[in-house]
Amino acid sequence: MILVCLDFEGVFTSEIWIGVAEKTGIEILKKTTRDEPDYDKLMKWRLGILKENGIGLKEIQEVIGSMGVLDGAKDFIQWLRERSVPIILSDSFYEFAMPLVAQLGYPPMLCNNIEVNGNGELVGYTLRQQDGKKKAVEKFREMGFKIIGVGDSYNDLTFLKEADKGVFFRPPKNIIKEKHGIPITDTYAELKAEIAKGLKELEG
Amino acid sequence: MILVCLDFEGVFTSEIWIGVAEKTGIEILKKTTRDEPDYDKLMKWRLGILKENGIGLKEIQEVIGSMGVLDGAKDFIQWLRERSVPIILSDSFYEFAMPLVAQLGYPPMLCNNIEVNGNGELVGYTLRQQDGKKKAVEKFREMGFKIIGVGDSYNDLTFLKEADKGVFFRPPKNIIKEKHGIPITDTYAELKAEIAKGLKELEG
Repeated sequence: MILVCLDFEGVFTSEIWIGVAEKTGIEILKKTTRDEPDYDKLMKWRLGILKENGIGLKEIQEVIGSMGVLDGAKDFIQWLRERSVPIILSDSFYEFAMPLVAQLGYPPMLCNNIEVNGNGELVGYTLRQQDGKKKAVEKFREMGFKIIGVGDSYNDLTFLKEADKGVFFRPPKNIIKEKHGIPITDTYAELKAEIAKGLKELEG
Repeated sequence: MILVCLDFEGVFTSEIWIGVAEKTGIEILKKTTRDEPDYDKLMKWRLGILKENGIGLKEIQEVIGSMGVLDGAKDFIQWLRERSVPIILSDSFYEFAMPLVAQLGYPPMLCNNIEVNGNGELVGYTLRQQDGKKKAVEKFREMGFKIIGVGDSYNDLTFLKEADKGVFFRPPKNIIKEKHGIPITDTYAELKAEIAKGLKELEG
Protein backbone atom coordinates (compact mmCIF):
# COMPACT_ATOMS: atom_id res chain seq x y z
CA MET A 1 0.00 0.00 0.00
CA ILE A 2 1.21 3.48 -0.89
CA LEU A 3 0.93 6.75 1.02
CA VAL A 4 1.59 10.16 -0.50
CA CYS A 5 3.30 12.41 2.07
CA LEU A 6 3.23 16.09 1.15
CA ASP A 7 4.61 19.27 2.61
CA PHE A 8 1.95 21.90 3.32
CA GLU A 9 3.32 25.41 2.73
CA GLY A 10 4.44 25.75 -0.87
CA VAL A 11 2.42 22.73 -2.02
CA PHE A 12 -1.11 23.67 -0.85
CA THR A 13 -0.69 27.21 0.48
CA SER A 14 1.76 30.08 0.33
CA GLU A 15 4.19 30.60 3.21
CA ILE A 16 2.12 31.20 6.35
CA TRP A 17 4.38 33.73 8.13
CA ILE A 18 4.73 35.81 4.95
CA GLY A 19 0.95 35.77 4.63
CA VAL A 20 0.52 36.81 8.27
CA ALA A 21 3.00 39.68 7.78
CA GLU A 22 1.16 40.87 4.67
CA LYS A 23 -2.37 40.50 6.02
CA THR A 24 -1.57 42.18 9.37
CA GLY A 25 0.80 44.77 7.94
CA ILE A 26 3.46 43.73 10.50
CA GLU A 27 6.24 43.59 7.91
CA ILE A 28 8.97 42.43 10.37
CA LEU A 29 7.16 39.08 10.65
CA LYS A 30 8.68 38.29 7.24
CA LYS A 31 11.92 37.48 9.10
CA THR A 32 12.83 33.80 8.49
CA THR A 33 15.54 31.33 9.56
CA ARG A 34 17.69 32.96 6.87
CA ASP A 35 17.76 36.09 9.07
CA GLU A 36 17.70 34.31 12.45
CA PRO A 37 19.11 30.76 12.14
CA ASP A 38 18.14 29.85 15.73
CA TYR A 39 14.59 28.59 15.19
CA ASP A 40 13.67 28.68 18.86
CA LYS A 41 14.77 32.31 19.15
CA LEU A 42 12.88 33.18 15.96
CA MET A 43 9.63 31.52 17.13
CA LYS A 44 9.75 33.14 20.57
CA TRP A 45 10.37 36.50 18.91
CA ARG A 46 7.43 35.95 16.54
CA LEU A 47 5.10 35.03 19.41
CA GLY A 48 6.28 38.15 21.27
CA ILE A 49 5.47 40.34 18.26
CA LEU A 50 2.01 38.81 17.97
CA LYS A 51 1.37 39.43 21.67
CA GLU A 52 2.51 43.05 21.42
CA ASN A 53 0.02 43.50 18.58
CA GLY A 54 -2.84 41.84 20.47
CA ILE A 55 -2.98 38.90 18.06
CA GLY A 56 -4.14 35.74 19.82
CA LEU A 57 -5.31 32.37 18.51
CA LYS A 58 -8.68 33.61 17.23
CA GLU A 59 -7.15 36.58 15.41
CA ILE A 60 -4.33 34.62 13.78
CA GLN A 61 -6.73 31.90 12.64
CA GLU A 62 -8.87 34.57 10.95
CA VAL A 63 -5.80 36.04 9.26
CA ILE A 64 -4.52 32.64 8.11
CA GLY A 65 -7.96 31.50 6.98
CA SER A 66 -8.26 34.62 4.82
CA MET A 67 -5.02 33.73 2.97
CA GLY A 68 -6.85 30.86 1.26
CA VAL A 69 -5.18 27.89 -0.38
CA LEU A 70 -3.36 27.96 -3.73
CA ASP A 71 -5.41 27.98 -6.94
CA GLY A 72 -6.07 24.36 -7.86
CA ALA A 73 -5.11 22.97 -4.43
CA LYS A 74 -8.64 21.75 -3.63
CA ASP A 75 -8.98 19.92 -6.93
CA PHE A 76 -5.52 18.44 -6.49
CA ILE A 77 -6.17 17.04 -2.98
CA GLN A 78 -9.51 15.61 -4.15
CA TRP A 79 -7.82 13.96 -7.14
CA LEU A 80 -5.23 12.51 -4.77
CA ARG A 81 -7.61 11.16 -2.14
CA GLU A 82 -9.55 9.29 -4.83
CA ARG A 83 -6.33 7.47 -5.82
CA SER A 84 -4.24 7.13 -2.69
CA VAL A 85 -3.98 8.24 0.94
CA PRO A 86 -2.52 11.75 1.27
CA ILE A 87 -0.79 12.62 4.55
CA ILE A 88 0.46 16.18 5.04
CA LEU A 89 3.76 16.47 6.91
CA SER A 90 4.55 19.96 8.10
CA ASP A 91 6.86 21.83 10.46
CA SER A 92 4.04 24.30 10.99
CA PHE A 93 1.52 24.37 13.85
CA TYR A 94 -1.80 22.63 13.81
CA GLU A 95 -3.67 25.54 15.39
CA PHE A 96 -2.36 27.91 12.69
CA ALA A 97 -2.91 25.60 9.72
CA MET A 98 -6.40 24.46 10.79
CA PRO A 99 -8.45 27.06 8.83
CA LEU A 100 -6.58 26.11 5.63
CA VAL A 101 -6.79 22.38 6.38
CA ALA A 102 -10.56 22.87 6.73
CA GLN A 103 -10.68 24.55 3.28
CA LEU A 104 -9.00 21.44 1.85
CA GLY A 105 -11.63 19.13 3.40
CA TYR A 106 -9.51 18.06 6.39
CA PRO A 107 -6.71 15.95 4.94
CA PRO A 108 -4.68 14.49 7.85
CA MET A 109 -1.83 16.75 8.90
CA LEU A 110 1.04 15.71 11.14
CA CYS A 111 2.80 18.74 12.57
CA ASN A 112 3.39 20.65 15.82
CA ASN A 113 1.35 22.47 18.45
CA ILE A 114 1.14 26.06 19.61
CA GLU A 115 0.52 26.52 23.32
CA VAL A 116 -2.48 28.70 24.02
CA ASN A 117 -3.47 29.94 27.48
CA GLY A 118 -6.97 30.34 28.87
CA ASN A 119 -7.21 33.84 27.41
CA GLY A 120 -6.49 32.61 23.88
CA GLU A 121 -2.96 34.07 23.95
CA LEU A 122 -0.14 32.29 22.15
CA VAL A 123 2.38 31.50 24.89
CA GLY A 124 4.73 28.90 23.45
CA TYR A 125 5.08 25.97 21.10
CA THR A 126 5.95 22.28 21.09
CA LEU A 127 8.01 20.63 18.38
CA ARG A 128 7.01 16.96 18.15
CA GLN A 129 10.52 15.89 17.17
CA GLN A 130 13.56 17.07 15.22
CA ASP A 131 13.47 16.34 11.47
CA GLY A 132 9.85 15.29 11.93
CA LYS A 133 9.01 14.88 8.22
CA LYS A 134 11.86 12.43 7.60
CA LYS A 135 11.10 10.49 10.81
CA ALA A 136 7.44 10.22 9.82
CA VAL A 137 8.40 8.72 6.45
CA GLU A 138 10.74 6.25 8.20
CA LYS A 139 7.99 5.15 10.58
CA PHE A 140 5.40 4.79 7.81
CA ARG A 141 7.87 2.60 5.94
CA GLU A 142 8.27 0.51 9.09
CA MET A 143 4.47 0.10 9.03
CA GLY A 144 4.89 -1.56 5.63
CA PHE A 145 3.95 1.37 3.37
CA LYS A 146 5.69 2.62 0.29
CA ILE A 147 5.94 6.40 0.20
CA ILE A 148 5.73 9.06 -2.49
CA GLY A 149 7.02 12.35 -1.05
CA VAL A 150 6.18 15.84 -2.34
CA GLY A 151 7.99 18.96 -1.13
CA ASP A 152 9.08 22.38 -2.29
CA SER A 153 12.27 23.36 -0.48
CA TYR A 154 15.64 22.48 1.05
CA ASN A 155 14.16 21.35 4.34
CA ASP A 156 12.15 18.73 2.41
CA LEU A 157 15.22 17.15 0.86
CA THR A 158 15.83 14.57 3.63
CA PHE A 159 12.26 13.31 3.60
CA LEU A 160 12.07 13.23 -0.19
CA LYS A 161 15.25 11.11 -0.25
CA GLU A 162 13.87 8.82 2.48
CA ALA A 163 10.70 8.24 0.39
CA ASP A 164 10.50 5.51 -2.28
CA LYS A 165 9.89 8.29 -4.77
CA GLY A 166 10.29 12.02 -4.24
CA VAL A 167 8.87 14.90 -6.28
CA PHE A 168 9.64 18.61 -6.04
CA PHE A 169 6.84 21.14 -6.60
CA ARG A 170 7.90 24.68 -7.51
CA PRO A 171 11.31 24.54 -5.75
CA PRO A 172 13.73 27.49 -5.65
CA LYS A 173 16.11 27.91 -8.58
CA ASN A 174 19.14 26.63 -6.64
CA ILE A 175 17.50 23.25 -6.10
CA ILE A 176 16.78 23.01 -9.82
CA LYS A 177 20.43 23.83 -10.60
CA GLU A 178 21.85 21.35 -8.10
CA LYS A 179 20.10 18.37 -9.74
CA HIS A 180 19.24 16.12 -6.79
CA GLY A 181 17.84 13.43 -9.07
CA ILE A 182 14.31 14.26 -7.90
CA PRO A 183 11.75 15.15 -10.59
CA ILE A 184 10.71 18.80 -10.61
CA THR A 185 7.13 19.89 -11.30
CA ASP A 186 5.69 23.34 -11.68
CA THR A 187 1.93 22.85 -12.09
CA TYR A 188 -0.59 20.56 -10.39
CA ALA A 189 -1.05 18.79 -13.74
CA GLU A 190 2.67 17.93 -13.81
CA LEU A 191 2.60 16.93 -10.14
CA LYS A 192 -0.39 14.64 -10.77
CA ALA A 193 1.45 13.03 -13.69
CA GLU A 194 4.53 12.31 -11.52
CA ILE A 195 2.39 10.91 -8.69
CA ALA A 196 0.39 8.73 -11.11
CA LYS A 197 3.68 7.43 -12.52
CA GLY A 198 4.98 6.75 -9.00
CA LEU A 199 1.79 4.92 -7.96
CA LYS A 200 2.08 2.69 -11.01
CA GLU A 201 5.80 1.96 -10.49
CA LEU A 202 5.47 1.24 -6.76
CA GLU A 203 2.35 -0.91 -7.13
CA GLY A 204 4.10 -3.03 -9.74
CA MET B 1 -0.01 16.35 19.43
CA ILE B 2 -2.78 13.76 19.59
CA LEU B 3 -4.06 11.37 16.92
CA VAL B 4 -7.29 9.43 17.23
CA CYS B 5 -6.87 5.96 15.68
CA LEU B 6 -10.13 4.17 15.00
CA ASP B 7 -11.16 0.79 13.72
CA PHE B 8 -13.41 0.94 10.64
CA GLU B 9 -15.95 -1.90 10.67
CA GLY B 10 -18.08 -1.67 13.79
CA VAL B 11 -17.18 1.98 14.40
CA PHE B 12 -18.17 3.59 11.08
CA THR B 13 -19.80 0.74 9.15
CA SER B 14 -21.30 -2.67 9.77
CA GLU B 15 -19.20 -5.77 9.06
CA ILE B 16 -18.31 -5.71 5.36
CA TRP B 17 -18.39 -9.47 4.61
CA ILE B 18 -21.76 -9.82 6.36
CA GLY B 19 -23.02 -6.95 4.24
CA VAL B 20 -21.66 -8.50 1.05
CA ALA B 21 -23.35 -11.81 1.94
CA GLU B 22 -26.68 -10.09 2.56
CA LYS B 23 -26.60 -7.76 -0.44
CA THR B 24 -25.51 -10.49 -2.88
CA GLY B 25 -27.62 -13.27 -1.34
CA ILE B 26 -24.49 -15.48 -1.13
CA GLU B 27 -25.17 -16.55 2.45
CA ILE B 28 -22.04 -18.70 2.81
CA LEU B 29 -19.94 -15.52 2.68
CA LYS B 30 -21.01 -14.97 6.30
CA LYS B 31 -18.33 -17.52 7.26
CA THR B 32 -15.77 -15.84 9.55
CA THR B 33 -12.53 -16.74 11.33
CA ARG B 34 -14.74 -18.32 13.98
CA ASP B 35 -15.65 -20.97 11.36
CA GLU B 36 -12.27 -21.05 9.57
CA PRO B 37 -9.47 -19.90 11.92
CA ASP B 38 -6.86 -19.92 9.11
CA TYR B 39 -7.32 -16.39 7.73
CA ASP B 40 -5.37 -17.06 4.55
CA LYS B 41 -7.53 -20.11 3.76
CA LEU B 42 -10.68 -18.09 4.53
CA MET B 43 -9.68 -15.16 2.28
CA LYS B 44 -8.71 -17.40 -0.65
CA TRP B 45 -12.01 -19.24 -0.27
CA ARG B 46 -13.92 -15.92 -0.21
CA LEU B 47 -12.17 -14.69 -3.35
CA GLY B 48 -12.95 -18.03 -5.03
CA ILE B 49 -16.66 -17.70 -4.17
CA LEU B 50 -16.72 -14.15 -5.56
CA LYS B 51 -15.07 -15.32 -8.76
CA GLU B 52 -17.56 -18.21 -9.18
CA ASN B 53 -20.35 -15.66 -8.88
CA GLY B 54 -18.83 -13.25 -11.39
CA ILE B 55 -18.17 -10.59 -8.75
CA GLY B 56 -15.11 -8.49 -9.60
CA LEU B 57 -13.81 -5.21 -8.21
CA LYS B 58 -16.46 -3.03 -9.82
CA GLU B 59 -19.33 -5.24 -8.65
CA ILE B 60 -18.09 -5.59 -5.06
CA GLN B 61 -17.49 -1.84 -4.79
CA GLU B 62 -21.10 -1.26 -5.85
CA VAL B 63 -22.31 -3.76 -3.27
CA ILE B 64 -20.18 -2.31 -0.49
CA GLY B 65 -21.05 1.28 -1.41
CA SER B 66 -24.74 0.42 -1.18
CA MET B 67 -24.28 -0.79 2.44
CA GLY B 68 -23.77 2.81 3.52
CA VAL B 69 -22.15 3.91 6.74
CA LEU B 70 -23.73 3.73 10.21
CA ASP B 71 -26.32 6.35 11.20
CA GLY B 72 -24.45 9.28 12.71
CA ALA B 73 -21.03 8.19 11.37
CA LYS B 74 -20.67 11.20 9.04
CA ASP B 75 -21.47 13.69 11.81
CA PHE B 76 -19.10 11.85 14.14
CA ILE B 77 -16.12 11.94 11.78
CA GLN B 78 -16.77 15.63 11.04
CA TRP B 79 -16.91 16.41 14.76
CA LEU B 80 -13.64 14.53 15.21
CA ARG B 81 -11.72 16.16 12.34
CA GLU B 82 -12.59 19.60 13.70
CA ARG B 83 -10.93 18.65 17.01
CA SER B 84 -8.13 16.22 16.23
CA VAL B 85 -6.63 14.12 13.44
CA PRO B 86 -8.56 10.88 12.87
CA ILE B 87 -6.67 7.97 11.33
CA ILE B 88 -8.60 4.80 10.52
CA LEU B 89 -6.70 1.56 11.14
CA SER B 90 -8.29 -1.50 9.55
CA ASP B 91 -7.55 -5.11 8.68
CA SER B 92 -9.83 -4.66 5.68
CA PHE B 93 -8.85 -3.88 2.09
CA TYR B 94 -8.56 -0.40 0.66
CA GLU B 95 -10.26 -1.29 -2.62
CA PHE B 96 -13.26 -2.70 -0.74
CA ALA B 97 -13.57 0.09 1.83
CA MET B 98 -13.09 2.93 -0.69
CA PRO B 99 -16.79 3.62 -1.47
CA LEU B 100 -17.54 3.90 2.26
CA VAL B 101 -14.41 5.98 2.92
CA ALA B 102 -15.66 8.34 0.18
CA GLN B 103 -19.04 8.64 1.94
CA LEU B 104 -17.16 9.74 5.09
CA GLY B 105 -15.28 12.48 3.17
CA TYR B 106 -12.05 10.50 2.75
CA PRO B 107 -10.58 10.19 6.23
CA PRO B 108 -7.14 8.56 5.95
CA MET B 109 -7.31 4.79 6.18
CA LEU B 110 -4.33 2.52 6.73
CA CYS B 111 -5.15 -1.05 5.75
CA ASN B 112 -4.37 -3.73 3.15
CA ASN B 113 -4.66 -4.24 -0.60
CA ILE B 114 -6.64 -6.60 -2.79
CA GLU B 115 -4.86 -7.71 -5.95
CA VAL B 116 -6.90 -7.04 -9.07
CA ASN B 117 -5.95 -8.26 -12.55
CA GLY B 118 -6.40 -6.41 -15.83
CA ASN B 119 -9.95 -7.80 -16.16
CA GLY B 120 -11.01 -6.37 -12.81
CA GLU B 121 -11.00 -9.84 -11.19
CA LEU B 122 -9.98 -10.23 -7.54
CA VAL B 123 -7.00 -12.57 -7.65
CA GLY B 124 -5.28 -12.24 -4.27
CA TYR B 125 -4.50 -9.95 -1.39
CA THR B 126 -1.55 -8.42 0.45
CA LEU B 127 -1.42 -8.01 4.22
CA ARG B 128 0.82 -5.06 5.05
CA GLN B 129 2.00 -6.65 8.27
CA GLN B 130 0.83 -8.88 11.12
CA ASP B 131 -0.98 -7.09 13.94
CA GLY B 132 -0.98 -3.96 11.76
CA LYS B 133 -3.19 -1.83 14.00
CA LYS B 134 -0.98 -2.25 17.06
CA LYS B 135 2.20 -1.68 15.01
CA ALA B 136 0.73 1.52 13.52
CA VAL B 137 0.03 2.86 17.04
CA GLU B 138 3.59 1.97 18.12
CA LYS B 139 5.06 3.81 15.13
CA PHE B 140 2.86 6.88 15.59
CA ARG B 141 4.02 7.01 19.23
CA GLU B 142 7.60 6.83 17.97
CA MET B 143 6.76 9.88 15.80
CA GLY B 144 6.01 11.72 19.04
CA PHE B 145 2.21 11.51 19.02
CA LYS B 146 -0.11 10.56 21.84
CA ILE B 147 -2.86 8.21 20.73
CA ILE B 148 -6.52 7.74 21.57
CA GLY B 149 -7.66 4.37 20.18
CA VAL B 150 -11.25 3.38 19.36
CA GLY B 151 -12.26 -0.19 18.53
CA ASP B 152 -15.16 -2.60 18.82
CA SER B 153 -13.82 -6.14 19.18
CA TYR B 154 -11.25 -8.61 20.49
CA ASN B 155 -8.83 -8.01 17.64
CA ASP B 156 -8.69 -4.34 18.67
CA LEU B 157 -7.62 -5.12 22.24
CA THR B 158 -3.85 -5.03 21.55
CA PHE B 159 -3.97 -1.65 19.81
CA LEU B 160 -6.31 -0.14 22.40
CA LYS B 161 -3.89 -1.22 25.16
CA GLU B 162 -0.93 0.19 23.17
CA ALA B 163 -2.71 3.57 22.89
CA ASP B 164 -2.40 6.26 25.59
CA LYS B 165 -6.15 5.94 26.00
CA GLY B 166 -8.44 3.26 24.58
CA VAL B 167 -12.22 3.34 24.14
CA PHE B 168 -14.56 0.52 23.13
CA PHE B 169 -17.56 1.29 20.91
CA ARG B 170 -20.41 -1.25 20.98
CA PRO B 171 -18.21 -4.26 21.88
CA PRO B 172 -19.62 -7.80 22.27
CA LYS B 173 -21.03 -8.77 25.67
CA ASN B 174 -18.03 -10.90 26.61
CA ILE B 175 -15.70 -7.92 26.40
CA ILE B 176 -18.04 -5.96 28.66
CA LYS B 177 -18.06 -8.84 31.18
CA GLU B 178 -14.28 -9.28 31.15
CA LYS B 179 -13.62 -5.69 32.29
CA HIS B 180 -10.41 -4.78 30.45
CA GLY B 181 -10.26 -1.38 32.15
CA ILE B 182 -11.17 0.31 28.85
CA PRO B 183 -14.23 2.60 28.87
CA ILE B 184 -17.21 1.22 26.95
CA THR B 185 -19.47 3.44 24.84
CA ASP B 186 -22.64 2.59 23.01
CA THR B 187 -23.62 5.79 21.15
CA TYR B 188 -21.63 8.38 19.20
CA ALA B 189 -22.55 10.93 21.90
CA GLU B 190 -20.90 8.72 24.54
CA LEU B 191 -17.91 8.10 22.27
CA LYS B 192 -17.49 11.85 21.66
CA ALA B 193 -17.59 12.47 25.42
CA GLU B 194 -14.83 9.87 26.05
CA ILE B 195 -12.68 11.27 23.22
CA ALA B 196 -13.16 14.84 24.45
CA LYS B 197 -12.13 13.68 27.95
CA GLY B 198 -9.08 11.92 26.50
CA LEU B 199 -8.02 14.95 24.44
CA LYS B 200 -8.20 17.11 27.56
CA GLU B 201 -6.26 14.63 29.72
CA LEU B 202 -3.53 14.00 27.14
CA GLU B 203 -3.09 17.68 26.24
CA GLY B 204 -2.64 18.57 29.92
